[in-house]
Amino acid sequence: MNRRRRIYEGKAKILYEGPEPGTLVQFFKDDATAFNAKKHEVIDGKGVLNNRISEYIFTQLNQIGIPTHFIRRLNMREQLIREVEIIPLEVVVRNVAAGSLAKRLGLEEGTVLPRSIIEFYYKADALDDPMVSEEHITAFGWASPQELDDIMAMAIRINDFLSGLFLGAGIQLVDFKIECGRLFEGDLMRIVLADEISPDSCRLWDVATKEKMDKDRFRRDLGGLVEAYQEVARRLGIMNETDANRPTGPVLVASSDGNETQH
Amino acid sequence: MNRRRRIYEGKAKILYEGPEPGTLVQFFKDDATAFNAKKHEVIDGKGVLNNRISEYIFTQLNQIGIPTHFIRRLNMREQLIREVEIIPLEVVVRNVAAGSLAKRLGLEEGTVLPRSIIEFYYKADALDDPMVSEEHITAFGWASPQELDDIMAMAIRINDFLSGLFLGAGIQLVDFKIECGRLFEGDLMRIVLADEISPDSCRLWDVATKEKMDKDRFRRDLGGLVEAYQEVARRLGIMNETDANRPTGPVLVASSDGNETQH
Repeated sequence: MNRRRRIYEGKAKILYEGPEPGTLVQFFKDDATAFNAKKHEVIDGKGVLNNRISEYIFTQLNQIGIPTHFIRRLNMREQLIREVEIIPLEVVVRNVAAGSLAKRLGLEEGTVLPRSIIEFYYKADALDDPMVSEEHITAFGWASPQELDDIMAMAIRINDFLSGLFLGAGIQLVDFKIECGRLFEGDLMRIVLADEISPDSCRLWDVATKEKMDKDRFRRDLGGLVEAYQEVARRLGIMNETDANRPTGPVLVASSDGNETQH
Repeated sequence: MNRRRRIYEGKAKILYEGPEPGTLVQFFKDDATAFNAKKHEVIDGKGVLNNRISEYIFTQLNQIGIPTHFIRRLNMREQLIREVEIIPLEVVVRNVAAGSLAKRLGLEEGTVLPRSIIEFYYKADALDDPMVSEEHITAFGWASPQELDDIMAMAIRINDFLSGLFLGAGIQLVDFKIECGRLFEGDLMRIVLADEISPDSCRLWDVATKEKMDKDRFRRDLGGLVEAYQEVARRLGIMNETDANRPTGPVLVASSDGNETQH
């Protein structure tokens, strides 16, 4: 894969030129970062787990008719995706107060929200990804009102589906972050889900114990992150028992965590 | 006025029980505060000027059909208003990047925005008035979607009118903050403009020199605040020359500034 041209390197992933025009290869790193990369660690095996979990979720979303950039997983750390024009927003959907929302509005973490809330953050590391509203987004042209409507409708559908999916696995979907892109097909353009959905970009609590099974284990130095991600994968039926116990080389499942988002 | 029952005391104003049911007396103090009252000063005469300027603006807005809580000015520091149920939002309309917007989005102060932007801040001193979006407002029931539509439509009309009014006086309306309330009349309820509009709640720049004629003179320790507010009043044709030079007692025009809002 190193022979391919590198298009973009983020905190947790690298994008390479794909085998055909209009495709890219998305590589999942083991890097875990938080608080706008002020905190950073390499957690062996995280990339492999997120690649598998995100593959599973994007595949399921495609099947219920939500368009995504995902084509197929290539290997343990890479997936083939469609090239899209990324909209510079982190779209956060919240069902339960946690993280920055709990802090900003003075809510106790764990408070169930009166209804799901969608938030937007402008992707700009230099500004620490400030929260923005539809007003800022449309005034500065980061997305059109029609695109925002599409993004919000998509976010609500994804929230409905994932809430059910995780609940079926004994996991509460507290909140999650998505990114969207513009996919150009001839003269047509449509909004599709991009980036990844994994325990790096979700808050996932065990329904019974309320234990955190997501990147907050890294943000808050709780330890056991790899085991938590593996448990998420196991409950979703992605990994068979043998996967987790295979002898590990440099590219195998071993432990995990990482990516960005401090929502 | 001290014989009246005090209903509420804010940073720059006091509300007393009014002479008739459904009315209140709004008293303008000389207190200037900023940064959530971490900075505080008493500026002799500020209340008198804001009472006059706000009376003038609310009267003009009433005349173009924008409903407000204002009934009439009673004396140098007090006005009679309708009692309303205040919606716990500061509604900020911005035409030019300044203050917190310039900082949060990394824009140079003075940059003309692609179009006017409406922002909402949740009125909660303990939380430093966090910015919120329509999503938070409707989810927590601070205002209904219909009320928000009314508020935004009103904010846009006020911005259009005041932009013209100030421009006619050689002043650029950079941004301003309003508050709205629910006015109950029998079975009917409607949204009306409440609080005040004054150099405490606006950013006003001289068109030619770009000199600040608003509370930023206090926030940024520029001095000359009273003179700036007097100049705003003078240009709006509110004060005749003699007003400004009258010998001053404890309740007369002398110098000015104050109120809240760090938008």
